Amino acid sequence: MNKYWYDDAQEFGVISPEKLMTVSGLDLARQIIAGELPAPTMAKALNFRMTEADEGRVVFRGSPLDEYYNPAGTVHGGWAGAILDSSLACCVWTMVPVGMAYTTAEFKVNLIRPMTEAIGEVVCEGRVIHMGRKLATSEGTIKTLEGKLIAHGTETCAIFDPTQR
Amino acid sequence: MNKYWYDDAQEFGVISPEKLMTVSGLDLARQIIAGELPAPTMAKALNFRMTEADEGRVVFRGSPLDEYYNPAGTVHGGWAGAILDSSLACCVWTMVPVGMAYTTAEFKVNLIRPMTEAIGEVVCEGRVIHMGRKLATSEGTIKTLEGKLIAHGTETCAIFDPTQR
Amino acid sequence: MNKYWYDDAQEFGVISPEKLMTVSGLDLARQIIAGELPAPTMAKALNFRMTEADEGRVVFRGSPLDEYYNPAGTVHGGWAGAILDSSLACCVWTMVPVGMAYTTAEFKVNLIRPMTEAIGEVVCEGRVIHMGRKLATSEGTIKTLEGKLIAHGTETCAIFDPTQR
Amino acid sequence: MNKYWYDDAQEFGVISPEKLMTVSGLDLARQIIAGELPAPTMAKALNFRMTEADEGRVVFRGSPLDEYYNPAGTVHGGWAGAILDSSLACCVWTMVPVGMAYTTAEFKVNLIRPMTEAIGEVVCEGRVIHMGRKLATSEGTIKTLEGKLIAHGTETCAIFDPTQR
Repeated sequence: MNKYWYDDAQEFGVISPEKLMTVSGLDLARQIIAGELPAPTMAKALNFRMTEADEGRVVFRGSPLDEYYNPAGTVHGGWAGAILDSSLACCVWTMVPVGMAYTTAEFKVNLIRPMTEAIGEVVCEGRVIHMGRKLATSEGTIKTLEGKLIAHGTETCAIFDPTQR
Repeated sequence: MNKYWYDDAQEFGVISPEKLMTVSGLDLARQIIAGELPAPTMAKALNFRMTEADEGRVVFRGSPLDEYYNPAGTVHGGWAGAILDSSLACCVWTMVPVGMAYTTAEFKVNLIRPMTEAIGEVVCEGRVIHMGRKLATSEGTIKTLEGKLIAHGTETCAIFDPTQR
Repeated sequence: MNKYWYDDAQEFGVISPEKLMTVSGLDLARQIIAGELPAPTMAKALNFRMTEADEGRVVFRGSPLDEYYNPAGTVHGGWAGAILDSSLACCVWTMVPVGMAYTTAEFKVNLIRPMTEAIGEVVCEGRVIHMGRKLATSEGTIKTLEGKLIAHGTETCAIFDPTQR
Repeated sequence: MNKYWYDDAQEFGVISPEKLMTVSGLDLARQIIAGELPAPTMAKALNFRMTEADEGRVVFRGSPLDEYYNPAGTVHGGWAGAILDSSLACCVWTMVPVGMAYTTAEFKVNLIRPMTEAIGEVVCEGRVIHMGRKLATSEGTIKTLEGKLIAHGTETCAIFDPTQR
């Protein structure tokens, strides 16, 4: 099992506003995957990372640890929500035009099966359903490596011109 | 600002199945608040804790850190989702009859305003809307100490007899 | 029981784009309630009407008929969805600035108790949770005249300048 | 365009509790499609009908009329919600074991493009995502005949033994 997804050399941090404004989301996502840009700190805190990015589709992989448990001894629903929100938002990011910004308006998660640390690595795919000029929607799943469904969800994002905010 | 919600003496962990089956959710929640039972590990990982529990209502407080950021340098939507899911689930827990179990079927989060670490402490309240024999629903909010709305959400839980699972 | 909410003299129809652009949503809603503007045709098809409109809050009342049943002989979930969507959207409408337009991005409905025609009149209230410049959210309930909860829901609306569409 | 989906000979009504308890949902759905069982009255009120039913998947077709408009002169979001809820619930119905009952706990609808009566016939497909013993989830879309996306949604259903209600 992957105890942690990142080695000690990996840097975590934010992307500069200049880069966010002048490079496409798809290119930024691919640079994060390649380690050329820092991964976000939340990915370290919750032990997941982006591993694939194409136009309208991304994949995250992660391993829930016993550090993310609820009182009953299973993985907190918030872990599934966080990795799903990452996929649901980033797949939209891959289609946002250069110079435009986006934000998550809402996301919804259905939890299908409980997880413990013993589940090991899970795969979380996000796919754009609709990419409009003002609004975008996406859907995603969390599955085990054998393809068993753990959770699924949808998201609504708002697309806007950050210079007119 | 609260760098961390817990001191070094605080223990984190799970509650035994025996306790979960024989003590009411409301009593368990209050024992967690009093430090008589371990807080869940997710609360440490994401720096929040339960501070109030009454029948059908709980309050969590927490401080999002720069360890929970997304690539754009604001708090990842998954942090709001996790603290909200905690409140939305635990307020239902306070009304689950002794001997019965519950699980989150789905939760939905609307993100209203972005957060950075500078926001400091936020208050997340969860309230039961409907408590049925098989299904329960709840609603909740995240607000700043001044009462400004940060996010809100709803949840659907399933109530079941764990001996018939 | 109200067999139908409207008398034969009531006119149904749409509001002209000019009016929609130059009169506030709150004023338009109140003129619909007063019968000075036509009620929408959907309100006739599904036997409900708006009865109150204030800034950020509206009330619809309606009576589900056996004309709106599902195969099992209870009121179709779509009826609850339609009257709730009316309230959830119109309460936002009461706060949309003159000259701006709005549209529903998504709505979510929790069905708590089944209805039959015998339920008679129900009350559906919608309240704005957040009114932003680009996005608004609202929540609402359907209750019996005695206050018993039948369904509840939330909605996300997009606010936009129709001249820049 | 289909002014109405049903001819004058079609009967509308409910299915007897005995049939609901002793015949599978898939068989009942197929008998409704074949006209051997009455279609539900809501399908007449809102001008749609089920046209295909397989295990875990159904298709509805319908035509929104100007009788289902909102004040702005487009089709009320409740129409999309009602045909989607029909598909999202009935695809679950096709997998409910004989003798068990099901009910919609919640559904969520994203509205992508506005409709007017001019859109003619639309196709609404529902597909089961997960079929469990206590809970089931489904997803669905509304599309034009050319495949343009109009709306999409998800649903959570509860499965239960009606003799233990």
